[in-house]
Amino acid sequence: MEISAALVKQLRDQTGAPMMDCKKALLESKGDFEKAVTYLRQKSLATATKKASRTASDGLIAAYIHPGSKIGVMVELNCETDFVARSNEFTEFTKNVAMHIAALSPLYIRREDVSDQVIEQEKSIYHEQAKDSGKPEKIWEKIISGRLEKFFSEVCLLEQTYIKDDTRSIQDVLNDLIGKLGENISIRRFARYQLGESLPQ
Amino acid sequence: MEISAALVKQLRDQTGAPMMDCKKALLESKGDFEKAVTYLRQKSLATATKKASRTASDGLIAAYIHPGSKIGVMVELNCETDFVARSNEFTEFTKNVAMHIAALSPLYIRREDVSDQVIEQEKSIYHEQAKDSGKPEKIWEKIISGRLEKFFSEVCLLEQTYIKDDTRSIQDVLNDLIGKLGENISIRRFARYQLGESLPQ
Repeated sequence: MEISAALVKQLRDQTGAPMMDCKKALLESKGDFEKAVTYLRQKSLATATKKASRTASDGLIAAYIHPGSKIGVMVELNCETDFVARSNEFTEFTKNVAMHIAALSPLYIRREDVSDQVIEQEKSIYHEQAKDSGKPEKIWEKIISGRLEKFFSEVCLLEQTYIKDDTRSIQDVLNDLIGKLGENISIRRFARYQLGESLPQ
Repeated sequence: MEISAALVKQLRDQTGAPMMDCKKALLESKGDFEKAVTYLRQKSLATATKKASRTASDGLIAAYIHPGSKIGVMVELNCETDFVARSNEFTEFTKNVAMHIAALSPLYIRREDVSDQVIEQEKSIYHEQAKDSGKPEKIWEKIISGRLEKFFSEVCLLEQTYIKDDTRSIQDVLNDLIGKLGENISIRRFARYQLGESLPQ
């Protein structure tokens, strides 16, 4: 069996185990990465604390705590170089995104993150609403898709209207920034905490 | 036995416990200051368990962004009243917990949060390690349970050694605070972001 050098390196980066042991672990586990990690730990060559393997290359972590400290947001924005990460435009935008999330409580970053189950649920609700509206059945589909678009624009961060400029979406502002700074920039993840809210099980 | 008012005051200043409790602690410990501190801490612990069922209805959200903005932590701490939430001790502890999480990367708050699957996986690794150690089979169980305890103390926030006092765990510091402020206090949730780390699928 062939084990790629890239996979060996990735295992080494994550576990800190010597290169030869990483290769052996991958051979033993037939290329299964998680099994190779377990193998290394069994042989005491790797510790439980995982080293984070890096994917995005640079960026910033920022937080916004709303006055009163009952609402907080943390966000990760990625770019390609430390130079851009430290630029005024990028740090300013990162801060503003955190503040925007505190104000507008998005649930997702993009519509692709919304599960099929949630979309089906929304559609069935809009279907009932269309039926009840008394409008002709031939326009129900249009009503449903219109409401679904509205739903996305309310719950997906990138589609929300930017709090600092109500003529543009977050995606618009992000696109401008990408053009201006000449690097790929993405909002990778966020967490929004509201004091005492019930937590998902 | 006579307990001097000065000693009672000193104990009160150090522990923040009510005057009468300090006097009682010193009487119980026959004037031994350290024993009296221990007595009061034991009492705080009793208070903690007694109050555990009360719902925490107030608290704070706080964040700590490590210089360089590549690591960030957000945390929610709960208490019972806004009065305690705004106290110096509570706000200070909340900040310190966020900083502690940034430094020590816990994966869980308490050991009850670790899934059975993870525990079984760890046990199987320690079993292999014990087998490989060449030590007699009759002590394998002891080796395994010892390593599991160590694992919990590394990955569970409450069991970690507090970064600002390496003689105490976060749970110890939390218990002291509960005793001092007289309210149930809990660390409810946290998020720790490290720039570019791979995300769970």
